[in-house]
Amino acid sequence: MIITVVGLGVVGGSFVKALKGLDHEVYGVDINEETLARAKAEGCIKEGFVDGHEIIKQSDLTIICLYPSLVLDYIQTHEFKKGSIITDAVGVKSYFLDQAMSIIDKDVEFVSGHPMAGRENKGYDFASKEVFQGANYILIQHPQNKKESIELMEQFVSSLGFHSVKILSPHDHDEIISFTSQLPHAIAVSLINSDSQKYDTGKYIGDSYRDLTRIANINEDLWTELFFTNKTCLLKSIQGFENQLDILKKAVLEEDSETLKKMFIESSKRRKNLEASQK
Amino acid sequence: MIITVVGLGVVGGSFVKALKGLDHEVYGVDINEETLARAKAEGCIKEGFVDGHEIIKQSDLTIICLYPSLVLDYIQTHEFKKGSIITDAVGVKSYFLDQAMSIIDKDVEFVSGHPMAGRENKGYDFASKEVFQGANYILIQHPQNKKESIELMEQFVSSLGFHSVKILSPHDHDEIISFTSQLPHAIAVSLINSDSQKYDTGKYIGDSYRDLTRIANINEDLWTELFFTNKTCLLKSIQGFENQLDILKKAVLEEDSETLKKMFIESSKRRKNLEASQK
Repeated sequence: MIITVVGLGVVGGSFVKALKGLDHEVYGVDINEETLARAKAEGCIKEGFVDGHEIIKQSDLTIICLYPSLVLDYIQTHEFKKGSIITDAVGVKSYFLDQAMSIIDKDVEFVSGHPMAGRENKGYDFASKEVFQGANYILIQHPQNKKESIELMEQFVSSLGFHSVKILSPHDHDEIISFTSQLPHAIAVSLINSDSQKYDTGKYIGDSYRDLTRIANINEDLWTELFFTNKTCLLKSIQGFENQLDILKKAVLEEDSETLKKMFIESSKRRKNLEASQK
Repeated sequence: MIITVVGLGVVGGSFVKALKGLDHEVYGVDINEETLARAKAEGCIKEGFVDGHEIIKQSDLTIICLYPSLVLDYIQTHEFKKGSIITDAVGVKSYFLDQAMSIIDKDVEFVSGHPMAGRENKGYDFASKEVFQGANYILIQHPQNKKESIELMEQFVSSLGFHSVKILSPHDHDEIISFTSQLPHAIAVSLINSDSQKYDTGKYIGDSYRDLTRIANINEDLWTELFFTNKTCLLKSIQGFENQLDILKKAVLEEDSETLKKMFIESSKRRKNLEASQK
């Protein structure tokens, strides 16, 4: 296939790196010419383009790795090859996909996807094929999608090293993502921001605080957009978490060891199951 | 020095492993004879004892790595060398230390410590000298402690590879630990327990959920004891966290991007500062 990756940041950059050595003709589009030159020098793309109008017209697959709002702009202002597939890596689907589907040319198919392989650091420098190894991928089944296109994307994504590829409706994607991705980010931000800073905190932490605050380093524009466009699901996930924290708080206050131990046993069981599911 | 480590679990085991090759005569005490045999075979201890009554009487430093309540038992039922130092690795200090100080022989000094190097897995198998490399250590300055003893312990601990050794009062230790260690555990447990389990969660997670739930695998007896004996500080830390989460929730509900972005910028700054402080 002729594949063009639009936006060579940490996700798009990881796509071109993961594609290196596979049997495709890969092009890159980025506003940063230095990034394009590096990707070309590394043998990850055949050629780089600042806009990509011409190469997009010849591409069988276009992977757009831009911010949600820019993905819509890009689709609207570019002409794609007839019969080609476009995909993306946007973290919220319902809100975004209805708009995307309404503006897309009917000869082109948009199969939306979500590589669960974000990094807290931005840019091509932090991109690597390892980012995708063993990670999860979600493909979105929209009523407008053909079965064959979903299957093609499933095979394509598996070839990049993802451990699991699952197919969900836009709504189900947003519901589970509000819990597995957005809630953890809301928690990490609230945790580090609740530090009274009375002590030199860094001297009194272990791996637990390190792990729980890693994603507190967060891209404010992207995540504000993601939170707002998945508001209902996110608020429900936060509420579910708070309910559990309330039970824990009450157990500590009342020194109710039975309840607290039950919670710890349950959470340990769930975490062990989670680890087993990743193998 | 003649050093005896009591309890060769993940922390005690890491002590004997970190001590290997340093200029000390090291003994181990554990109820598990197999563990003692392994530690001896690995050259980490000169000899192992199931109880240790005899070797304790000759030790210049006794490092007790048992559960909080068992540390008190051990101190009460053993006779230590006159002029020797006892230390521990208990995660809560105020409650525990007043009791320990009241039962200890006045010829022996108890310098309490907290290696911030716990692991979610229990036992000697998960012990390693690497656990301590670059980690933080807190020494507790109790009014009964001599300045020289604190200094001796400071040097000793530094020799094991810890990155930072700080001295705090029992109260200050418990206050900062309720935030950097106990609150993250309360959050991780509540997060994983709030999973509705409507989906096969493991297929829809990225590193954020993995990181935030790692410590949800938790020793229920130990952590119930730690939470209850540091109740006041822990409840205050949970409240501070909830206040921040409430601000975030309100900003999402009202689509108040200014407030949300400010929170994200602040959390990113704090996280970057934290990383810088670890170098």
